Amino acid sequence: MRMYDLILKKRNGVSLKENEIRWMIENYLNGSIPDYQMSAMMMAVYFKGMDRKETYQLTMAMAESGDMLDLSQIPGMKIDKHSTGGVGDKTSLALGPLVASCGIPVAKMSGRGLGHTGGTIDKLESIPGFCTSLTEEQFMDLVTETGIAIMGQTKDLAPADKLLYALRDVTATVDQMSLIASSIMSKKLAAGADAILLDVKCGSGAFMKSQKNAEELAEAMIDIGKKAGRKMAAVISDMDQPLGRAVGNALEVKEAVDTLKGEGPEDFTELVLTLGAQMLCMAGKAHSSGEARLILEQKISSGDALGKFREFVKAQGGDPGWTDRPENFCRADYIEEILSEDSGYVSDFSTQEIGICSLLLGGGRETKDSRIDPSVGLVLMKKKGDLVSKGDCLAVIYANDSLKLAKAKQHFLKNVIISEKQPKAEPIIKKILS
Amino acid sequence: MRMYDLILKKRNGVSLKENEIRWMIENYLNGSIPDYQMSAMMMAVYFKGMDRKETYQLTMAMAESGDMLDLSQIPGMKIDKHSTGGVGDKTSLALGPLVASCGIPVAKMSGRGLGHTGGTIDKLESIPGFCTSLTEEQFMDLVTETGIAIMGQTKDLAPADKLLYALRDVTATVDQMSLIASSIMSKKLAAGADAILLDVKCGSGAFMKSQKNAEELAEAMIDIGKKAGRKMAAVISDMDQPLGRAVGNALEVKEAVDTLKGEGPEDFTELVLTLGAQMLCMAGKAHSSGEARLILEQKISSGDALGKFREFVKAQGGDPGWTDRPENFCRADYIEEILSEDSGYVSDFSTQEIGICSLLLGGGRETKDSRIDPSVGLVLMKKKGDLVSKGDCLAVIYANDSLKLAKAKQHFLKNVIISEKQPKAEPIIKKILS
Repeated sequence: MRMYDLILKKRNGVSLKENEIRWMIENYLNGSIPDYQMSAMMMAVYFKGMDRKETYQLTMAMAESGDMLDLSQIPGMKIDKHSTGGVGDKTSLALGPLVASCGIPVAKMSGRGLGHTGGTIDKLESIPGFCTSLTEEQFMDLVTETGIAIMGQTKDLAPADKLLYALRDVTATVDQMSLIASSIMSKKLAAGADAILLDVKCGSGAFMKSQKNAEELAEAMIDIGKKAGRKMAAVISDMDQPLGRAVGNALEVKEAVDTLKGEGPEDFTELVLTLGAQMLCMAGKAHSSGEARLILEQKISSGDALGKFREFVKAQGGDPGWTDRPENFCRADYIEEILSEDSGYVSDFSTQEIGICSLLLGGGRETKDSRIDPSVGLVLMKKKGDLVSKGDCLAVIYANDSLKLAKAKQHFLKNVIISEKQPKAEPIIKKILS
Repeated sequence: MRMYDLILKKRNGVSLKENEIRWMIENYLNGSIPDYQMSAMMMAVYFKGMDRKETYQLTMAMAESGDMLDLSQIPGMKIDKHSTGGVGDKTSLALGPLVASCGIPVAKMSGRGLGHTGGTIDKLESIPGFCTSLTEEQFMDLVTETGIAIMGQTKDLAPADKLLYALRDVTATVDQMSLIASSIMSKKLAAGADAILLDVKCGSGAFMKSQKNAEELAEAMIDIGKKAGRKMAAVISDMDQPLGRAVGNALEVKEAVDTLKGEGPEDFTELVLTLGAQMLCMAGKAHSSGEARLILEQKISSGDALGKFREFVKAQGGDPGWTDRPENFCRADYIEEILSEDSGYVSDFSTQEIGICSLLLGGGRETKDSRIDPSVGLVLMKKKGDLVSKGDCLAVIYANDSLKLAKAKQHFLKNVIISEKQPKAEPIIKKILS
């Protein structure tokens, strides 16, 4: 087999066969296929696409390129949740403990943030002492004992995807549906869950700007997961404004804790309950999403969900008491209000740019080696549709550098649109697919 | 400037600017841009194309990436001729001396063959002693003294094209019109001629299978040349069967000599006269192609053209007498006839495969490092439209290895179609563009 012939085939719009895809991934991983041929292939895929069969086979080849986690020793149905990422997305922090408190084992591998989106691992690490580098054994033990563990992805999880993604990232071949779907799903399948719930975001802060594209991506991923024998479902949710109010690592942990206390922002609470209800139904813990919601709400009001969060933090080496003291989340040197320069309705956010405000403050990574400042970020005081007067507080900003503060403030004001007309209210949940 | 942004731009169908193209070529040549980004760019160009302006700018950037030959010290208008290549294409061997005998200086850089097409340099080297490795100075001196010199391309001629072509060759991005046109023209412009005549082949033995594509390529190249201030013309010629009768290095030299004696095959003679007439008109040596043809025919019948060939061979270190003795062209160990297994009309050749017969005999290169056997090849006794009876001689084959002979013979018979219906006669000259 020659890589040249496979590139030519794909370029000419012909589907690749399973043995060709496997051969390609194996030989790319072992270094026999050079980057320059693989990048030409990726660009050909960008233009010619991959059909469902090819996409599934690529996913499996990448998933099986490294360790395939075996979670079977943990009793019960293991459900993984994956979000395609956005601004202010602290969902796993609240959802994990909440469903764990309902008796669903949560064994989750999460990523770090890059660019305008944050990562669950970075957020958890803003809790002093919290450790996300676990061995596979520690991870299993924690899930068995506590019912929940979240760790960083190991090196050996879908290494072919890691290699291929790094190449796509520098050759403008990231935004192709089949490639996105197979990249996400290869890691999810290798992580070993029996069922996978996808939270596919759409809007100005998401990778998928339109609902149509988000649904397409969700369907592609559901198709892959089902072919691989996993139970699958997807929620399409809004990312046309930051999720909840907090954007920034420690600030988002606080908002997740607030939500587990029943004091979270409305949109974020709704998303957590919807995703949680799906998970309860997938796990057979409820017969309908209505019944599931009642269970979840009861776990919040009883304090069981918050208790599970504290247990989880403690088990992974963090100080659970730390999250109980609100002053721990106000440790930034500068805490300032951003005041509105106009009167009217908050009609639009350039959501990605709000994420970049946090990046400008030092709360995100510009490159893979950047160090994160966990205490910075911002908390929105107004969301889409809210009425504001000139001088009203739009957001509170947390900074440790006056220059960065000024920059981020300016950037924030440039990316919130205040207009006379009240915008149409968009629901946080757009669609549920399974 | 970042290569990533340029790939993205081209991928999204936006034209690249002159400074972007120059930056890209410079930084690829100096190694700052890695192959994997350039191959992604080439694949994006394959799908999105380049407009006329971009194509011209890419050509100039590549031409100027190395030496630009200055032929101004040679008096008169210097005309280069370029063929897009085919099977049995020995045109330069006859055309060069013929137009040189009319007083047009011929300063030509030629390439070696690869795959099913032969190269002028390889053919010339079948003449014992003939040297094609000249310094620039020797080359100029020869043109000034003899009126003609043909040398191999120097390393410093459009080095960016060399690098880029090698990459395209292994990433399935060769067959894109703008990239083909700029690759050819970058070398031609760097070679310094005032005027360039293109012989663009079309048909089963050519790179361009259809006349439409051949014309498109010709137009793209004419556009580039004119933008660069060169006089341009193109002849679209037939390559649906081998040109002339001889395919193989020494055998083609003999056919060129025969043609300069006025004893060449009809189609090849017609092509040489047509191209020669164009060159005479471009150089202002004739007012019409009719007048030009008379001059050329007179140069053949007077023996001046053949005399110029002998002079040219001698000046480059070859033995001019060698080409006078026909037995020198029959030095192969095996000379056998290929007999027709059917009766009917020769209706079609898989021309590329006839070129491969010569390759199988050892007359071409499978890889860049293959050594060529100059004495092998074949001479067609029948051409398209000829009537044959079973047992008639279709071709004479020259070989030095009985196994290769058997293979080539079989391959030949598989690639000549004899059928009941006489095929439509195709003229050798399809169109002249300028």
